[in-house]
Amino acid sequence: MTAPHLDVAPWSVREPHVSAAGLGAAEAIFALSNGYVGIRGTLDEVEPCVERGTYLAGVHETHPLVYPEGGYGHSEEGQAIVAVPDGTPLRLVVDGAALDVRETEPEVHERTLDLRGGTLDRRVRWRAPSGTTLELRTRRLVSLTERSVCGIRYELRAVDGPAHVVVRSELTVGETPPEVESDDPRVAEALDNPFTVLESHRSRTGGTLAVRTRRTGITVATSMEHDVEGAATVETETGEDQVVTTVTAALAAGDRLGLTKTLGYAWSRDATEGSMVDRAVAAVRSGRDGGWERLLADQREALDAFWDRADVEVDGDPELQQALRYDLFQVYCAAAQTSDAPVGAKGLTGAGYNGHTFWDVEGFVLPVLSLVAPAAAERLLRWRASTLDAARERAGVLEWEGATFAWRTIDGHEVSAYWPASTAAVHVNADVARAFWLHADVTGQDLDALGGRDVLVETARLWMSLGHEDVDGGWHVFGVTGPDEYTGVVDDNVFTNLMARRNLLRAADACDAAPERARQLGVTDEEVTAWRRAADAVHVPWDEHRGVHPANESFTTYREWRFADKRDSYPVEEHQHYAKFYRRQVVKQADLVLALWWCRDDFTDEEVAADLEYYEARTVRDSSLSAAAQAVVCARAQHPDLALRYLREAALVDLRDVQGDTAEGLHLASIAGAWLALAAGLGGLREDREQLELAPLLPTGLRRTRYHVTWRGAVLRVETTADGTALTLRDGPGPVAVVDGRQVVVDREGVRVPLRAAAPLPEEPTQPVGREPRT
Amino acid sequence: MTAPHLDVAPWSVREPHVSAAGLGAAEAIFALSNGYVGIRGTLDEVEPCVERGTYLAGVHETHPLVYPEGGYGHSEEGQAIVAVPDGTPLRLVVDGAALDVRETEPEVHERTLDLRGGTLDRRVRWRAPSGTTLELRTRRLVSLTERSVCGIRYELRAVDGPAHVVVRSELTVGETPPEVESDDPRVAEALDNPFTVLESHRSRTGGTLAVRTRRTGITVATSMEHDVEGAATVETETGEDQVVTTVTAALAAGDRLGLTKTLGYAWSRDATEGSMVDRAVAAVRSGRDGGWERLLADQREALDAFWDRADVEVDGDPELQQALRYDLFQVYCAAAQTSDAPVGAKGLTGAGYNGHTFWDVEGFVLPVLSLVAPAAAERLLRWRASTLDAARERAGVLEWEGATFAWRTIDGHEVSAYWPASTAAVHVNADVARAFWLHADVTGQDLDALGGRDVLVETARLWMSLGHEDVDGGWHVFGVTGPDEYTGVVDDNVFTNLMARRNLLRAADACDAAPERARQLGVTDEEVTAWRRAADAVHVPWDEHRGVHPANESFTTYREWRFADKRDSYPVEEHQHYAKFYRRQVVKQADLVLALWWCRDDFTDEEVAADLEYYEARTVRDSSLSAAAQAVVCARAQHPDLALRYLREAALVDLRDVQGDTAEGLHLASIAGAWLALAAGLGGLREDREQLELAPLLPTGLRRTRYHVTWRGAVLRVETTADGTALTLRDGPGPVAVVDGRQVVVDREGVRVPLRAAAPLPEEPTQPVGREPRT
Repeated sequence: MTAPHLDVAPWSVREPHVSAAGLGAAEAIFALSNGYVGIRGTLDEVEPCVERGTYLAGVHETHPLVYPEGGYGHSEEGQAIVAVPDGTPLRLVVDGAALDVRETEPEVHERTLDLRGGTLDRRVRWRAPSGTTLELRTRRLVSLTERSVCGIRYELRAVDGPAHVVVRSELTVGETPPEVESDDPRVAEALDNPFTVLESHRSRTGGTLAVRTRRTGITVATSMEHDVEGAATVETETGEDQVVTTVTAALAAGDRLGLTKTLGYAWSRDATEGSMVDRAVAAVRSGRDGGWERLLADQREALDAFWDRADVEVDGDPELQQALRYDLFQVYCAAAQTSDAPVGAKGLTGAGYNGHTFWDVEGFVLPVLSLVAPAAAERLLRWRASTLDAARERAGVLEWEGATFAWRTIDGHEVSAYWPASTAAVHVNADVARAFWLHADVTGQDLDALGGRDVLVETARLWMSLGHEDVDGGWHVFGVTGPDEYTGVVDDNVFTNLMARRNLLRAADACDAAPERARQLGVTDEEVTAWRRAADAVHVPWDEHRGVHPANESFTTYREWRFADKRDSYPVEEHQHYAKFYRRQVVKQADLVLALWWCRDDFTDEEVAADLEYYEARTVRDSSLSAAAQAVVCARAQHPDLALRYLREAALVDLRDVQGDTAEGLHLASIAGAWLALAAGLGGLREDREQLELAPLLPTGLRRTRYHVTWRGAVLRVETTADGTALTLRDGPGPVAVVDGRQVVVDREGVRVPLRAAAPLPEEPTQPVGREPRT
Repeated sequence: MTAPHLDVAPWSVREPHVSAAGLGAAEAIFALSNGYVGIRGTLDEVEPCVERGTYLAGVHETHPLVYPEGGYGHSEEGQAIVAVPDGTPLRLVVDGAALDVRETEPEVHERTLDLRGGTLDRRVRWRAPSGTTLELRTRRLVSLTERSVCGIRYELRAVDGPAHVVVRSELTVGETPPEVESDDPRVAEALDNPFTVLESHRSRTGGTLAVRTRRTGITVATSMEHDVEGAATVETETGEDQVVTTVTAALAAGDRLGLTKTLGYAWSRDATEGSMVDRAVAAVRSGRDGGWERLLADQREALDAFWDRADVEVDGDPELQQALRYDLFQVYCAAAQTSDAPVGAKGLTGAGYNGHTFWDVEGFVLPVLSLVAPAAAERLLRWRASTLDAARERAGVLEWEGATFAWRTIDGHEVSAYWPASTAAVHVNADVARAFWLHADVTGQDLDALGGRDVLVETARLWMSLGHEDVDGGWHVFGVTGPDEYTGVVDDNVFTNLMARRNLLRAADACDAAPERARQLGVTDEEVTAWRRAADAVHVPWDEHRGVHPANESFTTYREWRFADKRDSYPVEEHQHYAKFYRRQVVKQADLVLALWWCRDDFTDEEVAADLEYYEARTVRDSSLSAAAQAVVCARAQHPDLALRYLREAALVDLRDVQGDTAEGLHLASIAGAWLALAAGLGGLREDREQLELAPLLPTGLRRTRYHVTWRGAVLRVETTADGTALTLRDGPGPVAVVDGRQVVVDREGVRVPLRAAAPLPEEPTQPVGREPRT
């Protein structure tokens, strides 16, 4: 295990000792972000580190995609997020010796992420080789209120003797390129050194650096300024690709050196370097106005407001309590200030997946934001709507109608290099469309506000060109890959077909509701009629013999996977060939089970029970996307304890490094999914009716759950204990909700509904050996 | 069109004028080969040329295969045939000016491939800039009796004035690398300059060059020697990577200069350079023994013997007559002296497909060789059997049982970089197995003679691990790609399933017939019983509604292709994405239709008629493999005229450059298929019964067909006219044959069977617009 040891606490994540093995995961776990800029949780002195990086959402470089056997329409250009100039380094030299935790273990080395303060705090007590003990306290923040501003507070005290200290504070063009899934030297060539330095300036106490990506031509300006307290010498110099401010002081025992480093970032695809530099400098100025304390206060105020409408509590499981707050904190920070850029699968916490966004974000992150931070959701949806032209263009290349969204991308263009798990995974289009209709359902906002109607119409057109009616009258979609990437290029994937149905019906409804806008989009009555007819005719395979839904046509007749023989062969795709597992009954992640959630009205309770049991026995959960969906459906199938175990896996995925790759960045969809597992799973929340609906369950392991939902402008608190569920209006107009089928009016006093009588729980489904829920 | 203009003649192919546009195709058409060494039909003076190359079967270099998104079990190393040192150049300079047909068009420039003499003859009449006209005659041969020997006879005459002539005769490490299907610079790096020169020697009149491939470590030795007549100066020098003999003469009007250049080639993976050089030198010596005339005489004798047992005639279609002889000549030459190496899809006539062999060779080339040149067939089968270990290893990587043969390879290891059309195209295994059982059927030879029993057993084991029985009792093979590469990753491809059935039954029979050998191979009775049970249970999809076989499960329910809209979009794969056409009713090449031929006993005549009509309307024939199969099945369905049109397309594929890519090498499978279209198609020949069976048809366009078959040691001549079919024993023991169901004893006098009464021909099936048979 590479997970760092972390203390359990309700409002913080504390690492009591630095550990080499857990360094990479800690860099991701302690990453700070506001969705515009993100900083990995590297040590102030940078080394040792696994992946150093400051990222700006949308700043990326391209590289050629070359295939040993290519084909028409394969993406020819990849994209990768690149680390922009890094302003975090504050290297300390005491009496000529550098602080390096690999050389001398500090007496104290603790780091704490404060979920209410929004800061990463570090405390180090270190005896320098010269014999003097020093105490270092640093605090880092990425402002949640001023998107371009980051700040670092640095305080050093000579505890028991004199010390000559030098603090070297850098702003440096990144040195460690991202890990790209290729060993093609041309990819390395494009990404190893992506920037040209345009200019650098310095004053005595800081400076700026403007750089430009070579291929994408993105201009990035960064600026830093230092406010130093105490008797110290400050000077700044510029190098080829860095600006360095050096602070020198001779401390007597008990003396302190304090400094505040304020950083500003700006980028653009088309602005001049001059205007970008001006913006970065202005950001620094803005960050310094009112001083460090004001930055801290603003940060806390923003988070207070957030927690006030979003806090989540569970009694009886302190580990889960911590994880749920941590997860929600990171999901919020990942999107708080995003603008004109996607949120990648890892947010800005690492270069994993090259910074690409996938359907994960629309499928798992956006619904959470719509329900707890709708303004952030809006920004993400706006970005996706802005890629509609790229999606139309891609559909044109494929000779499909409408628009087909990128499977993985940064700027909206498809960059996947393996078509069976991308171009064929057309469900991404319904997933994207769902995020728009779900947001409209939750907020009551008009679809056009965020371009949702255009998205619905263009994806409906896509489905009409993908599917077709057979002589049997059924409407089929052939040759696709569903969410389960271990079953590729299949016919009539149930999830895909049912999502296509929803997409078509939602598009038809959207056009009926706004005929004038529909006309502008060229939609005719005949077109809408055809959408509804296709939706009615959607073929849903059913295995009469086994009494379950095959995930796609014939799935249940595939050869079974020998789980017992292959218990050491996970993830499956790294030990087996596509040609083998694509037609075996081994499921990477919830697929039919995801349909049981997202398309719940298409399944009876009996079908849910049978299907869940069938797929639980065959799902290996090699994707972190799966646990949350399994949790929700387990809850629906009245297995609250199993649901809780999946919820724990989803919630702890990064704090416990369940997948072993947290070092590459957080699993945003999983940690967002944890909230969904709580609210939509144990809470039974559904947002797609006129009124908010709930069907709460309390698993054996929890005494109480409490969370907040923002529903059509109202903030509701939902608290469930053995005594029942209390709904309280915290803000906004009091809505009508439906709990266990019973309508209740929610007001500021709160209303309580008893837990529904606990039916004797059916036996829990079982998982493949070794693939039970884990934390 | 890039086809060179060629005269029609029964026993030769003559190009009356050199043309720049047709240069590349002519280089392939005029290539000479004996299956060990092959020489492109480049001009003696090399330039102008499209692709220069002397190839040795099996001599190849490897290169890395790098994927932008890889996966477990993807081939990591590619292979490519590389041009070995080229001994063809004989550059002529007259009075200081080089002969270059681009600069001064010769008065005469004709080249003739003599199908009886086995030589490529060239005659040039050229007025040099100095004013003197020269007549040049050259003749080139690649010995069909001494595999390492090539010879060139060069005669020059000053017609009408004096001329100072210099002939520069080279042996040079190839300069033009093959076209590899990659723009990866590492591939170019590996292949641009594949050889290290080990040593060079020279005498006054010739020399040797030994080189080694850098990655594969193959040693190639080449030697040349010149015999010069007339008053000339001869000297030889060696350069870094060449040996050059220069012959200088001052010719008076009417004077002649004659020289014979003899070339010897040898290669090995493990022998020392010294022994290779010795072999190459000995080959030259052997070639010179008896002189040029003896080489010519031996060549003619070998071909006389071949034509005597293999000649093919058609009356009424001189173009086809020429093509059938040309095709058979090239098929024979491609394999005549092959040893320990495969025959690539292009033979040794070009670097197309990187020199790889595919199922084409087992499917189309080998059956022809088994029926007309069984000794050559044996060598090819021996090579394939020698790759069984590589095939076992590949099956191991995929966790399949038995052995799975490479989709494309030179040394037996899989080098395909696109798995849906290679690893998933498991039918290759049954195709390979069929070549072994077909050869045993045709020759009566024991399977073990060529390792056939091992191949049958290991492929049967593979099928048992690929297929499985469902609760319905049917035995299924899921997730495969059949011969039609436009329909990929499908379930229960009929061709694959039926070939698997045959493979299983043939393996079971082979084990029953040799129980001791079966025991050595670890085959148990239970295993054989399981093979037979699976074979019995093979599922064959049937579309009740349309009354045809779907090529695979659901094929006939796919959306139809809009052929009329896409008439300018061929080949489909270059204009459309896999994700689109994999589930459309557009067929690249005979697939279900190939099953109607290779698995004919599984279909009634009514099914053949209905299936053929259905697939004819949907087959675009983007592969040159298709026409022959369509011809055979059209004949079976009593459409002899349509069969003839397909036969013509297959036969003329290279002489008319039907596919537009003959420059990259001949389409061996198509030109071999032309013979099959004649014998198995119009002739109705089937070889898989105890006695040879025929069911002759005579299409309207032909007055007479005549071909030869070697059947269990006997050479039979089969001649069909309106009067009936005459079978004559030409050599060997007189077999019993069955013509139109009637048993006849064939002897040297011959026996005649009347043509069966012509039933009124049903209406011919139609093809997609623009995709009718073409020449």
